[in-house]
Amino acid sequence: MDQRDNPGWAFSERAALLSSSAIREILKITQRPDVISFAGGLPSPDTFPLDAIRGAFDRVLARQGQAALQYGPTEGYAPLRAWVAEDLNRRGGRISPDEVLIVSGSQQGLDLLGKVLIDPKSKVGVETPSYLGALQAFGLYQPEFVLAPCDDDGLVPEALDFELARCARFLYVLPNFQNPTGRTLSRARREALVVQAASCGLPLVEDDPYGDLRYGGEPEPGLYTLAPAAGACVIRLGSFSKVLAPGLRLGYVAAPRELIGKLVQAKQASDLHTATLTQMAVHEIVQSDLLVRHLPVIQALYRTQCEIMLAALAKYFPKTAKWTRPQGGMFIWVELAPDIDSTQLLARAIAARVAFVPGAPFYALCPKTNTLRLSFATVPEAQIKEGIKRLGELL
Amino acid sequence: MDQRDNPGWAFSERAALLSSSAIREILKITQRPDVISFAGGLPSPDTFPLDAIRGAFDRVLARQGQAALQYGPTEGYAPLRAWVAEDLNRRGGRISPDEVLIVSGSQQGLDLLGKVLIDPKSKVGVETPSYLGALQAFGLYQPEFVLAPCDDDGLVPEALDFELARCARFLYVLPNFQNPTGRTLSRARREALVVQAASCGLPLVEDDPYGDLRYGGEPEPGLYTLAPAAGACVIRLGSFSKVLAPGLRLGYVAAPRELIGKLVQAKQASDLHTATLTQMAVHEIVQSDLLVRHLPVIQALYRTQCEIMLAALAKYFPKTAKWTRPQGGMFIWVELAPDIDSTQLLARAIAARVAFVPGAPFYALCPKTNTLRLSFATVPEAQIKEGIKRLGELL
Repeated sequence: MDQRDNPGWAFSERAALLSSSAIREILKITQRPDVISFAGGLPSPDTFPLDAIRGAFDRVLARQGQAALQYGPTEGYAPLRAWVAEDLNRRGGRISPDEVLIVSGSQQGLDLLGKVLIDPKSKVGVETPSYLGALQAFGLYQPEFVLAPCDDDGLVPEALDFELARCARFLYVLPNFQNPTGRTLSRARREALVVQAASCGLPLVEDDPYGDLRYGGEPEPGLYTLAPAAGACVIRLGSFSKVLAPGLRLGYVAAPRELIGKLVQAKQASDLHTATLTQMAVHEIVQSDLLVRHLPVIQALYRTQCEIMLAALAKYFPKTAKWTRPQGGMFIWVELAPDIDSTQLLARAIAARVAFVPGAPFYALCPKTNTLRLSFATVPEAQIKEGIKRLGELL
Repeated sequence: MDQRDNPGWAFSERAALLSSSAIREILKITQRPDVISFAGGLPSPDTFPLDAIRGAFDRVLARQGQAALQYGPTEGYAPLRAWVAEDLNRRGGRISPDEVLIVSGSQQGLDLLGKVLIDPKSKVGVETPSYLGALQAFGLYQPEFVLAPCDDDGLVPEALDFELARCARFLYVLPNFQNPTGRTLSRARREALVVQAASCGLPLVEDDPYGDLRYGGEPEPGLYTLAPAAGACVIRLGSFSKVLAPGLRLGYVAAPRELIGKLVQAKQASDLHTATLTQMAVHEIVQSDLLVRHLPVIQALYRTQCEIMLAALAKYFPKTAKWTRPQGGMFIWVELAPDIDSTQLLARAIAARVAFVPGAPFYALCPKTNTLRLSFATVPEAQIKEGIKRLGELL
């Protein structure tokens, strides 16, 4: 029988695993207007195609209002599922519309994957470091995280432990401009990874929210495009948050039919379906040529801000620090001298009115405490220079 | 080590509990235009305040577009949380805005409650029958359902088993125009229920999506308004789906601060937050006087359709059948002669081009197979008469 105060409630064991994310707490502090914050993971609101979105919502409500406001199928709005499949296939995939599930932001895709694939003590492979939101979503289903070996160029397929891989439920990978490191997996490593995954029957979860934000180097093939030839199973997550706007909460999962079937049932119990109006409005936008015109605008902005931050790091940071040089996305990852604890540094940084995210929470295991993540996406150029200068002075 | 096909995946034990809802499968059949369907749980799209919603989205995007499209706090848009608290307090509550969490439809509230309150084999009390979506959401967390004793007037507080109640995680109640039965709990029973719950420390989950759709009798107090005097803990779920439109996917949970804190953390891992734009647009609508003008329109429509269905039932159904007479909401519950299996009846009904939902899936345990749910919300008057006539002929 439960022990319980009277009146009160007993939390589940799972609830004990929940804690407010370190980043969430930091963001509260760093929202003070006098702080130059490299801590956020937010895209620049200057990139939101406001007029296109406003027009799309208005047209959908004017033309199909009753359908847009009614309950809809859990799988998602059929024309949007078809568009996602087409878009993936234009890039080399072989996805059918019924292999696409529309979700309320790709974070929900992570939660649903945890729900249908993870039992307590299941092994789940993750990069080191990896996206904190995925560690949180999966963590609630009580897996045993297994670290995939990584170096400065990301995951090292050859170094995957075959026996571990054979019994892991899946390996979670962010191949493009990874959050938090900004690293991108080379074509050779992608090819080796899907072959390796196929050989040990390891499903890959490819999370790619940033892939369209490339502003340097050459595009690399999505893991899902390499999967059929290799005989691998790739579950792909995508998002409209970074190419349109995150406040819409819209993403997708593309996966084999049998898995989509289970994810649909899990989503039905979780929130019935994603907002019909939002799906219709986004479909209205993406089927036009807006993204073709709009993506270069975002890419140019982030390229400029990334270059300014890299130049400032070279100018103001000590020789003992090293950092990534991303080809896209929103993040630079810094590794400081081994004796510097970035959480302690943050306290001093906030006093100097500049903020970042310490690297430790991004590690499922064995955190490197001398690391930190910098985002340049929302910070104006002059403030990027000033903020990095202040951090450099602290170091 | 997992048994797994190569390549393939191992589903979680939880996934084995997932199955497509019986209702979902029925709805697919009954969407054929030649079928008169009483099976849906959809509100009438004629009640959607289309112009108000269109205007609100447009004004929000025009005035606060960047904020509406950016990531937002997991707790929800602060002015909407404040409005929900005020609205509950106008009706006799004592809720502060930080005791309100905005969710992506109240179905998400059910899932989050399952996540933070249910462990495998936890006891969870439910009415008999109860809302199928709640049984599905809670069921994924593997509780042991315990049936709260119910009669034709709903839950019977005096008959609650004290020892069971002491060890249950919570008791889930729909006090107004319950889905599926249309039953409403009397004031006396509500008062007895909160006293009883307080005495055995049993948290109550009050799910009230239909409360504003009253078209007969007198309003009864929400359980949350009776809770403070009794010393009971009430977690309240509310929805904008039935008073505005379900396709927006917007609802709320009001609960003590400590519980809201855990729910916020669970929601963060589930979908980060509910769409900012939708929250701002709905706030724009509800802070105007639209609901005051709009609710009587919905109530009048459903009153008329309910009366027509009740009259048709009296005219065409056999004396061996009995049914509820709801004071609001969208559903009538029918109990047929004990030897009639409503699932078998459905096959014959569909052949006669009329559909309903068999009652069995609404029972957590011990289904009564001679029951069925009828919804009149989306069916025009003439078709209500014709559909009930066809069903009566089959009986």
